[in-house]
Amino acid sequence: MYLSDHDIRDMPKQYRTNFVNSLSGFKSANLIGTRSQSGCNNLALFSSAVHLGANPALMGIISRPDSVTRDTLTNIRETGYFSLNHVHKDMIEAAHQCAARYPSEVSEFDAVGLTPQTSQHHPAPYVKESHVSIGLKSREIMTIAVNNCYLIIGEIIEVKIENEAIQKDGTIALEAIQTVTISGLDHYHTTRLIHQYNYAKPDRPLSIKK
Amino acid sequence: MYLSDHDIRDMPKQYRTNFVNSLSGFKSANLIGTRSQSGCNNLALFSSAVHLGANPALMGIISRPDSVTRDTLTNIRETGYFSLNHVHKDMIEAAHQCAARYPSEVSEFDAVGLTPQTSQHHPAPYVKESHVSIGLKSREIMTIAVNNCYLIIGEIIEVKIENEAIQKDGTIALEAIQTVTISGLDHYHTTRLIHQYNYAKPDRPLSIKK
Repeated sequence: MYLSDHDIRDMPKQYRTNFVNSLSGFKSANLIGTRSQSGCNNLALFSSAVHLGANPALMGIISRPDSVTRDTLTNIRETGYFSLNHVHKDMIEAAHQCAARYPSEVSEFDAVGLTPQTSQHHPAPYVKESHVSIGLKSREIMTIAVNNCYLIIGEIIEVKIENEAIQKDGTIALEAIQTVTISGLDHYHTTRLIHQYNYAKPDRPLSIKK
Repeated sequence: MYLSDHDIRDMPKQYRTNFVNSLSGFKSANLIGTRSQSGCNNLALFSSAVHLGANPALMGIISRPDSVTRDTLTNIRETGYFSLNHVHKDMIEAAHQCAARYPSEVSEFDAVGLTPQTSQHHPAPYVKESHVSIGLKSREIMTIAVNNCYLIIGEIIEVKIENEAIQKDGTIALEAIQTVTISGLDHYHTTRLIHQYNYAKPDRPLSIKK
């Protein structure tokens, strides 16, 4: 089946949103925690976290245009910090409910029944229930001119994680701690490891590590 | 367990790379196809594809700094187009082998045994074996100043997909077509649907759609 850019543009709006949101493949599931200047905690579900570099350790998230209220973006602009918290299997209902448009003065933590945890080093709340929580300092908010979205770039300043979740080579055993993955807008999946491979080199066949 | 930014900086290099690459959660697995000005096909594995918008339909990928040769980035700069091809279960070995550093004049298609397919509308080759292939026109290449990476923004100009893979609501059944997900640098996983949820609203309990 072949679809042109015109075919995509002519799709009904919600159908197109579901379709195009599936095209990048499986996505991460993270709750972004922020605190407003007036002290209200905010929690929002993002599937757009992207690795930007290991040294300095940098991650990005995409925020949609601020033509309507975007609490996460506003809070990061005002306070300079955010937290990123992995969604695991037993948290998916609470996480998905965070996508509802609560008023700015309502804390999603209270609304969906998750527990905020404070850091000694920054104002953004962590999600106590998460198995991996990351504190980030905003380094830059870049405007994506073509559609007025934003790439929010954060530098990792602290990580809270269960010791046993880190494998010998440094990789986090995401599957063992039941971190989930998202497809489209609203499908949540667990995973099963096929293989871990060794580093690929041009002059030797690929070998399975695990 | 608590890790500070200093703890992360002090990790051995490869350990830190594995660790920080796991922190964003599960990632997409895509082969990016490009063609050089001299006509050589290139294929590279990217786990950084990110949805940027549905109308216009936009996606981004992250390229590392071009302090060394980056064929994908160079080819996109020179020709203006790239393809994004989902990696499915039976392709993971070939896809991972594409990460080896072949010389620019070697086509990874030949080296790993995948089949290039030409488009009538742009020069970038598709991967015939993929179940979802997307043609993109480069709209902007943004420099991420803090570490000299690039966000390559592409507008979707065509999609090749099996008709049956698109669900009634527009979502692609990624699991049914065996698209895989990556964790860390080298772990490949299949998925299993937990639930699809209905749209979340503040004033009603969340309900399961599937």
